[in-house]
Amino acid sequence: MLKLNCDLGEGFGIYRIGEDNKIMPYIDMANLACGFHASDPSHMQESVRLAKMYGVSIGAHPSYPDLQGFGRRVMQCTPEEIEAFMLYQIGALDAMCRVEGTKVDYVKPHGALYNQMMKEPLLFESIVHSIAKYNIDLPLVILSTPQSQQYEEIAEKYGIRLMYELFADRAYTNEGRLVSRSEKGAVIEDESEVLGRIGRLLEEGVLESNDGALLHLKADTLCVHGDTKTARSLVIALRDMIDAYRDS
Amino acid sequence: MLKLNCDLGEGFGIYRIGEDNKIMPYIDMANLACGFHASDPSHMQESVRLAKMYGVSIGAHPSYPDLQGFGRRVMQCTPEEIEAFMLYQIGALDAMCRVEGTKVDYVKPHGALYNQMMKEPLLFESIVHSIAKYNIDLPLVILSTPQSQQYEEIAEKYGIRLMYELFADRAYTNEGRLVSRSEKGAVIEDESEVLGRIGRLLEEGVLESNDGALLHLKADTLCVHGDTKTARSLVIALRDMIDAYRDS
Amino acid sequence: MLKLNCDLGEGFGIYRIGEDNKIMPYIDMANLACGFHASDPSHMQESVRLAKMYGVSIGAHPSYPDLQGFGRRVMQCTPEEIEAFMLYQIGALDAMCRVEGTKVDYVKPHGALYNQMMKEPLLFESIVHSIAKYNIDLPLVILSTPQSQQYEEIAEKYGIRLMYELFADRAYTNEGRLVSRSEKGAVIEDESEVLGRIGRLLEEGVLESNDGALLHLKADTLCVHGDTKTARSLVIALRDMIDAYRDS
Amino acid sequence: MLKLNCDLGEGFGIYRIGEDNKIMPYIDMANLACGFHASDPSHMQESVRLAKMYGVSIGAHPSYPDLQGFGRRVMQCTPEEIEAFMLYQIGALDAMCRVEGTKVDYVKPHGALYNQMMKEPLLFESIVHSIAKYNIDLPLVILSTPQSQQYEEIAEKYGIRLMYELFADRAYTNEGRLVSRSEKGAVIEDESEVLGRIGRLLEEGVLESNDGALLHLKADTLCVHGDTKTARSLVIALRDMIDAYRDS
Repeated sequence: MLKLNCDLGEGFGIYRIGEDNKIMPYIDMANLACGFHASDPSHMQESVRLAKMYGVSIGAHPSYPDLQGFGRRVMQCTPEEIEAFMLYQIGALDAMCRVEGTKVDYVKPHGALYNQMMKEPLLFESIVHSIAKYNIDLPLVILSTPQSQQYEEIAEKYGIRLMYELFADRAYTNEGRLVSRSEKGAVIEDESEVLGRIGRLLEEGVLESNDGALLHLKADTLCVHGDTKTARSLVIALRDMIDAYRDS
Repeated sequence: MLKLNCDLGEGFGIYRIGEDNKIMPYIDMANLACGFHASDPSHMQESVRLAKMYGVSIGAHPSYPDLQGFGRRVMQCTPEEIEAFMLYQIGALDAMCRVEGTKVDYVKPHGALYNQMMKEPLLFESIVHSIAKYNIDLPLVILSTPQSQQYEEIAEKYGIRLMYELFADRAYTNEGRLVSRSEKGAVIEDESEVLGRIGRLLEEGVLESNDGALLHLKADTLCVHGDTKTARSLVIALRDMIDAYRDS
Repeated sequence: MLKLNCDLGEGFGIYRIGEDNKIMPYIDMANLACGFHASDPSHMQESVRLAKMYGVSIGAHPSYPDLQGFGRRVMQCTPEEIEAFMLYQIGALDAMCRVEGTKVDYVKPHGALYNQMMKEPLLFESIVHSIAKYNIDLPLVILSTPQSQQYEEIAEKYGIRLMYELFADRAYTNEGRLVSRSEKGAVIEDESEVLGRIGRLLEEGVLESNDGALLHLKADTLCVHGDTKTARSLVIALRDMIDAYRDS
Repeated sequence: MLKLNCDLGEGFGIYRIGEDNKIMPYIDMANLACGFHASDPSHMQESVRLAKMYGVSIGAHPSYPDLQGFGRRVMQCTPEEIEAFMLYQIGALDAMCRVEGTKVDYVKPHGALYNQMMKEPLLFESIVHSIAKYNIDLPLVILSTPQSQQYEEIAEKYGIRLMYELFADRAYTNEGRLVSRSEKGAVIEDESEVLGRIGRLLEEGVLESNDGALLHLKADTLCVHGDTKTARSLVIALRDMIDAYRDS
């Protein structure tokens, strides 16, 4: 069944983003920041408690070490540095989980690290490798694309399971790629349009491109946003739609 | 048997302090920095590998979040903040250990956090509590003082074992307190004098104060320094002395 | 004439606090964060531009180096460290001002540094000294208290002018001290009550304590808050009141 | 006359690199770290004092914000971010200079920022622009290459003077480019060979490539290293050679 995942726990110190407590009840997977692009030990603890309260699966959301840039700036790091960053962040979050009687269930890299992982096979491999070393039972969430062969091969080599994610409110090209945010229409702002597309995905297994083509993309999980005004309304609607489909 | 512990893994980025590889072979317990006062994910990984290579027990050496001040500046934090800092750092180091097939064996707070923990019962309790939540089998290393009752009571309340440490090269007052570093003679620089004192501690169980009084202080472990020119020579001599005593 | 000052420019990276553009038009002095407790180079540049646009005087708002704690945690620093921190922050902000054709006009330490400066004469002196070295024409904003003699003496020694500030919405004890935030009634939330008190201050030069006593406190500037829902309404009302009094 | 420049002031907190006090007396220009890749307010103050003591010209040595990576990792920043970073760092250092009765005399970007500036015209322009806004009298030190036309054009557009630097101990290709550090022979370790090459540069105005070709490269300043064991010996020898040539 399609799971809803959302980046949460992205406050820092006195700063807060979004209203995690209003989104958490409706999602399946919470990607929690680990202090490198956002969050800090206190926020992490709070986020883990909130996820646990709602029975939401906790994912580590590791990043390049760049608080000021919110992990959105590519940093030229070696595979060894990336591996060490991954372990540090996953371990720190896992400790927060452990004291709350829960654990990290999966890993989804954040921001620029996520984007680069899809572009650089060596970086992807160092991420997969670090997870395999830490806990081979943690799946890695990656972007669903038409060509997933190369990712599958690397993941299999290390015994790591991949989870493919689609973005609920993003337009896709005929080639099954995300329309760049710099282009018009990259983000689908109309809630009913988003719901229509995801409804068809659920029932027919296809996603419409921005040009009307039907895309067959793997979809284990759907990424929703938690930090916009209309976020909550869409998340609730998607939750209802997915639950209704499952029960039908 | 008296164990030798040493603060190691205190480099950061391109910076290095001391020669860890020359000290590690001779100690029993390595207190490894966790990125808050020193070290970073890459250094931590390297330090864990070095400790493992020599079969040295690994301790988390958590600190206030103050890289620039090397954790030596007191920071007014709440017990909740301290608990979160502790978990974050211990968890991060434990992840590094886990991938190397080892684990964090104990906890010894660093610098100002260590000093404040001995002064503020609430801070001490939050440290004990955080360890108990994470892993009740991790002992906490604290300063050996004549009045350990209050620490014992708190530790017992949470089921945490305390390990008492003496400082090999520091002078003690008649009251069993460390002579302040601001006073002359606080650090005993003559190696043979240090060895004589520790020899007597091993054989008679007493430590001489700076005034010649005989102190009966609990001593599970002896802290040695790893970052001075003469450090290595003293550590090797202490290692030999302890081993000889054990074998006699 | 009583000037309105406000802590602004306290965002960081993607984080924002308050709506600076809605407060800036109504104040006289903007205390701008310098990257140690909040803000970053980009935010500082933006804040300076906004202040300049409205002709608002720019003050450096330096802090202990503690982004995660928003500068609210006391840090045990040496006078030399404090001096270096001050110069670094004032200089960085002054550079931002310089390229916009303006300059830093005064200094007001932030948070825990502000509070400690009022408590520790040595710290106060190191702050005054650092300003005097940098630019003897920058006044230092401090808390108005009944006993200002000690501060005056130190400031005079270095040739620095002091500006005394009162807090618009804080209750004062009969002794002329701020009622602690841990006590009930520390913050006066009723706008008309605040306006009544400040009106009397303007006209009669006295401030009512929480017990009805009349306090004679120096008042060069009035601190208002910019980050609460009702902040803007109060700031506008105070602006109007001060302008009306001046023109009368 | 060819000036010797050196990256100094690169300690941080308790960490130190090289022995600045042993190099400073022999150089003309000290590129001082500004807290982003190395140094901190206290170190900066100390470095400025040392430079002033020996009458050495002070340059700002700004970097990407990456202490852990020592500014050696490329970070994908916008021109606006770069401009703000530049101003912040130059301003902070200039404040340290101001209180010591001196000033920043020039700017030389550090590490990855330096390398990227030579590769990306937009980044180069944002650096030039930021300097021009701050103080049009500060020259910018860049790598001397056979094709300097593009840099000259941008610098002229903003009224900034360029200073071309060669590296004393680096091999150059026939095309006048630095031999990559990943290749053998990139660094010339033999002191007499370095001296021979620089001697010829002084007398004949040509630099030999690694292949024996004669390169005509602009050379306003020669970069020497301060953090290796043999650094001091080479610096003193270069100082003597340059002084002797000048006096001849």
